[in-house]
Amino acid sequence: MSERIARKRGGGGAARRAARQAVSFETAPTIVRNIPNYEPIDAATLDIIERNAETVLEEIGVSFPENPEALEIWRNAGAEIDGDRVRIPRGLARELCKTAPSQFTHHARNPERSVTIGGDNLVLAPVYGPPFVRDIEGGRRYAVMDDFENFVRLGYMSKYLHLSGGTVCEPTDITVNKRHLDMLLAHMTLSDKPFMGSVTEPSRAQDSVEMCEILFGKDFVRDNTVMTSLININSPLTFDSIMMGALEVYAKANQACIISPFIVGGAMAPVSVVGTLTQVLAEVLAGVAYSQLIRPGAPVIFGAFVASIDMNSGAPTFGTPESSQILYGAGQLARRLNLPFRSGGGLCGSKLPDAQAGYETANTLNAALLGGVNFMLHACGWLEGGLVASFEKFVMDADQLGALHKMAAGISNDENAQAMSAIEEVGPGGHYLGCAHTQANYQDAFWRSDVLDYKPFETWQDEGSRDTENLAAAKVKSLLASYQQPPLDPEIESKLRTYIAEKKSSLPDSLT
Amino acid sequence: MSERIARKRGGGGAARRAARQAVSFETAPTIVRNIPNYEPIDAATLDIIERNAETVLEEIGVSFPENPEALEIWRNAGAEIDGDRVRIPRGLARELCKTAPSQFTHHARNPERSVTIGGDNLVLAPVYGPPFVRDIEGGRRYAVMDDFENFVRLGYMSKYLHLSGGTVCEPTDITVNKRHLDMLLAHMTLSDKPFMGSVTEPSRAQDSVEMCEILFGKDFVRDNTVMTSLININSPLTFDSIMMGALEVYAKANQACIISPFIVGGAMAPVSVVGTLTQVLAEVLAGVAYSQLIRPGAPVIFGAFVASIDMNSGAPTFGTPESSQILYGAGQLARRLNLPFRSGGGLCGSKLPDAQAGYETANTLNAALLGGVNFMLHACGWLEGGLVASFEKFVMDADQLGALHKMAAGISNDENAQAMSAIEEVGPGGHYLGCAHTQANYQDAFWRSDVLDYKPFETWQDEGSRDTENLAAAKVKSLLASYQQPPLDPEIESKLRTYIAEKKSSLPDSLT
Repeated sequence: MSERIARKRGGGGAARRAARQAVSFETAPTIVRNIPNYEPIDAATLDIIERNAETVLEEIGVSFPENPEALEIWRNAGAEIDGDRVRIPRGLARELCKTAPSQFTHHARNPERSVTIGGDNLVLAPVYGPPFVRDIEGGRRYAVMDDFENFVRLGYMSKYLHLSGGTVCEPTDITVNKRHLDMLLAHMTLSDKPFMGSVTEPSRAQDSVEMCEILFGKDFVRDNTVMTSLININSPLTFDSIMMGALEVYAKANQACIISPFIVGGAMAPVSVVGTLTQVLAEVLAGVAYSQLIRPGAPVIFGAFVASIDMNSGAPTFGTPESSQILYGAGQLARRLNLPFRSGGGLCGSKLPDAQAGYETANTLNAALLGGVNFMLHACGWLEGGLVASFEKFVMDADQLGALHKMAAGISNDENAQAMSAIEEVGPGGHYLGCAHTQANYQDAFWRSDVLDYKPFETWQDEGSRDTENLAAAKVKSLLASYQQPPLDPEIESKLRTYIAEKKSSLPDSLT
Repeated sequence: MSERIARKRGGGGAARRAARQAVSFETAPTIVRNIPNYEPIDAATLDIIERNAETVLEEIGVSFPENPEALEIWRNAGAEIDGDRVRIPRGLARELCKTAPSQFTHHARNPERSVTIGGDNLVLAPVYGPPFVRDIEGGRRYAVMDDFENFVRLGYMSKYLHLSGGTVCEPTDITVNKRHLDMLLAHMTLSDKPFMGSVTEPSRAQDSVEMCEILFGKDFVRDNTVMTSLININSPLTFDSIMMGALEVYAKANQACIISPFIVGGAMAPVSVVGTLTQVLAEVLAGVAYSQLIRPGAPVIFGAFVASIDMNSGAPTFGTPESSQILYGAGQLARRLNLPFRSGGGLCGSKLPDAQAGYETANTLNAALLGGVNFMLHACGWLEGGLVASFEKFVMDADQLGALHKMAAGISNDENAQAMSAIEEVGPGGHYLGCAHTQANYQDAFWRSDVLDYKPFETWQDEGSRDTENLAAAKVKSLLASYQQPPLDPEIESKLRTYIAEKKSSLPDSLT
């Protein structure tokens, strides 16, 4: 299939010319973890959580409001229906989840950028959803389509980022019922990395599928996953009919969904780790089971977005010990279900890309790496609790993602790594900079930041004593200045633009 | 013994009056880990490292320059001596290490502040060694005794910091051969937390012991450990005679030492994780064995200070994947030796307490927590690769240490933590803020920063859009303004001052 796509993409003369002129931006392959997962919750506690989650499903149940079709599907599957409430007999949801694949391929239009989601793989995707953007010159402001396109460009050029993402920011200069079309076009034309579809209306999910059919070909989309989309559960225990409608569209089209409780602990879940994990598991079981009722085998991801809360102000807080504990536990539960796992990211509550952002983001990135996350949304660019997409933080975080790649590669113990010849050559009191082993290995030996400051103090001072935000701002500028669009068959691009024009003209302006 | 100390401390009327007036600053107990360690290196690789380290000791050997007494001790123990070189037969060093205790108590003059080092315990100590300080108003400048005293005050007031530390910064306004006396006096009088002794000359180590004899009583010091001091190995494989002289003083006095390779990877050790771990293990084996030859049973800590290097500039780099991997591996090796382990801290290379500092510091703190560190030096205040002690970063890091305390406490699975009553009470679509379980648990449920910003955007903006450095600067001011000295028997303080005056008058001014 990939070959066909590649041929098709390179079909036109213009595309061939573009390909020859294009700067090649390297993307590191999917991270395949060669390190163990960190699993701080013991088996007895996981058993308790699983037992309690089944009790929640059976006795309390979940709500599918304004969705008679879903209730009927559940009734036919053996659930007890009471109003909007769906009570799922012990074991039924878990049984239904078994048809979900443990891993799947999410195809990119450039086959080299396709990714495997699940197993030991870690796939990194940028921030999703902020209505605001921030940069050092313009400050905080509503996001517009120009911002969106620049984030897609930065994501395309990031070596360590695997996905182009979805709603990298909300382009508020385009009406809500039309902006998904422009966002998808940007992902399809300005990048060749995999992307996510619209979930704000079932019809917009359908539009996303149809645009993919133009980009990839109908046959390819029928047989392959080309989008992974974000289906948030309205925690606690509520499955919004619009989100479920989008899920239905995607599952029927064999497109992947992240089934993700969205929890600010203490508000949407109990103020305890085990209580929150119980609710997360119940919600994911119900959501994944529902996806498999729609289409057995539909690719899904066990999601867990969990912030804690500052009980003084009510603000969600990130990079906290409790959110890391929940992440670790959710990963353990997902693996016991044999499902791909989504959590983590570069989450922080800070208003600025400052030290707070650094601490909180690193706390979350580390937990996500060691906790066995397979799909990391919000891996870069997230600021102010997700209200803001920050240009500087995007490149700062994307740089840190390189450290995750290196850490996950694990620790070699071969003869070269043992370096006994070096220790012998150098001996007591010597130094290693010039020895043969160092010369042979130094280029790959240590991960190196492309953004942070490693200069001598005097040089750094002479260059203006720049902090990380300023260094990152310079990097954003230089990246955008060197951006070159990846080649795309002009015929396909033209069809996409025609599709969008027709779709837009058929739609009223709408604010929802 | 503790009772005797307590009685003595409260002996004078002035001390009793001071005690009544003193503000009590709470210190959280030693962290006892209720979570597993992260152990990414498999047993086969650890076996290779241990075998290779023995080969290094046997075939390459270690150097004890300008130290004929040490060479004689090694010869008598069965090592082969060749010039300064000590070749240690396979297994000998490991055998000698067996008399070192797996854990020990480091006593504070306030018995409530005494700490246990080793086992599942994690003890946190502040930055050590910077010649410069930085704060937001004064910028970067040479450290003086006023700075030193203010850091001791901040450390005393930090709930999450267990030790007052050692050379929190270098008081450069006092000559090198005298400043250890003033530093020790500050730790002894401005704080009641445990502290570290001088290592810059054997005679200064002896002064440290004698000052402790005044503070704790001679009998108490003879029978108990009241200092843990930092003995750096001059990597690769060299044991400096001055450092060894200090080690000898402390080991003979039953005082604890951290035996710590000091490594910038690629310069003082091979550019590979396994090669560096091999050298670290060989150095620690030789150093700990030597301490046990001086006095079997002398308390020691397996140290590993490892930075990586930026091969472009030669600068040491911190919070990198390789340094975390080495930390994890060193922890595994230390536990196989049944020795307390020192590593980690709030290490960073950044010139400012900015996002870079946040990322790098959090990367190191997380690795140190999960890697099983028992003694964390540089836990707060470290900036610019250890050249600078930063006032703002001291309180920023000290705040993050609270997250380590909470994370290490582990995850309860009792009925209250299961929170089934809350999930039932709230049900689908409800919210948890007001439910009975939340009301009963919210105060301890989530760790909360005392420094970082959790305010609504508008409030934060109205208050001046302060970044973390500015928030921390305000915290430094308010802490120092509310500082109150812990009570100390005036007779003891007077004896300490007399000792210092006599010692100073007996010494020439010296620059080394």
